[in-house]
Amino acid sequence: MISDHRLHRAMKLFWRREYFDISVEELGARAGLDRAAIYGKFGSKQKLFEALLGRFRDRVTARNLEPLEAKGAGLAAVEQFFNQFRDMRRKADSRLGCLICRTAAEVSPLMPSVARIVSAFLDDLRALFARACRNARRQGELARRVDEVKVADSLTGAVLGLMALARCPAPSSAIANYDDGVLSYLHDLKPSPRRER
Amino acid sequence: MISDHRLHRAMKLFWRREYFDISVEELGARAGLDRAAIYGKFGSKQKLFEALLGRFRDRVTARNLEPLEAKGAGLAAVEQFFNQFRDMRRKADSRLGCLICRTAAEVSPLMPSVARIVSAFLDDLRALFARACRNARRQGELARRVDEVKVADSLTGAVLGLMALARCPAPSSAIANYDDGVLSYLHDLKPSPRRER
Repeated sequence: MISDHRLHRAMKLFWRREYFDISVEELGARAGLDRAAIYGKFGSKQKLFEALLGRFRDRVTARNLEPLEAKGAGLAAVEQFFNQFRDMRRKADSRLGCLICRTAAEVSPLMPSVARIVSAFLDDLRALFARACRNARRQGELARRVDEVKVADSLTGAVLGLMALARCPAPSSAIANYDDGVLSYLHDLKPSPRRER
Repeated sequence: MISDHRLHRAMKLFWRREYFDISVEELGARAGLDRAAIYGKFGSKQKLFEALLGRFRDRVTARNLEPLEAKGAGLAAVEQFFNQFRDMRRKADSRLGCLICRTAAEVSPLMPSVARIVSAFLDDLRALFARACRNARRQGELARRVDEVKVADSLTGAVLGLMALARCPAPSSAIANYDDGVLSYLHDLKPSPRRER
């Protein structure tokens, strides 16, 4: 039985550093997961990493997705979702960005089974944004010309950009300004009182 | 003297794979850069990597930046810049995304000297977007309410998102839709004929 605490330390190690930079020896020394535990329980370092991606999703991402999962979540929920990352640089954990987004852009082209896991996550995120658009449409918040699939893809890409910015050598104001750009994009999805309705 | 061809193969190796996943031995076997060449000429694998980031900028990024560097480049040049990545999935190289953007979000928090290099690149990109906004302003293409610094930060983040998407397990349509989102954001920066001028 591997303790929750050790798994959490291993997850944080992968979150902070790079998959290939962390050896089985280091997982032993820093997270207390020795070779026997990793191979006995998971089969390989890669399979441990895949399990930890699931853990990240359940323990970290799930909380961030709450606004989008609320009943009737529309454009205001999407704004609320993006705004929670606005001062991410001030928090020790969130300045690490998102382990899943990073893995999607970095490790996943090199490992098909990792790609499948992060792909499912990106699909879920896209589906939540599409649902928010449909809710917004029903609530009269979305201009007629707006294509929900395009918006969902745009917002999913915007999350990847935001999470990359979190780790980048860029000033904190860059994150707030980027967030403002997303908010302004969202604002322009609304029907203009003069043009339509 | 290390041949240009070998340096190019080493750059491609780092572009395709991960920094920490590539050993000095593999650089020898796959790029013909043996230990003596790496240590003798560069001092370390990290310093070789830093030199190759500069090479990437000169050989790959420079071509992509041309629309933004043109005399008087305004919003149409920004559109042209983003549109050149629209079908990046169809090209073997560009589906690898951008080595510098990836490094910014991935390796740079772990290595200060790498962070300095990519930070300078991001600053240049931001400055080019800000210049395009100033040109657009002069040409009457930008609404009064638009803040050039915010737009430059937004577009820089948008590039990070796009380059992450390139490598992500997501359909090609996701990239085109994301690009449409950026174009729509750019469109909404223009003065509305009814609201102002």
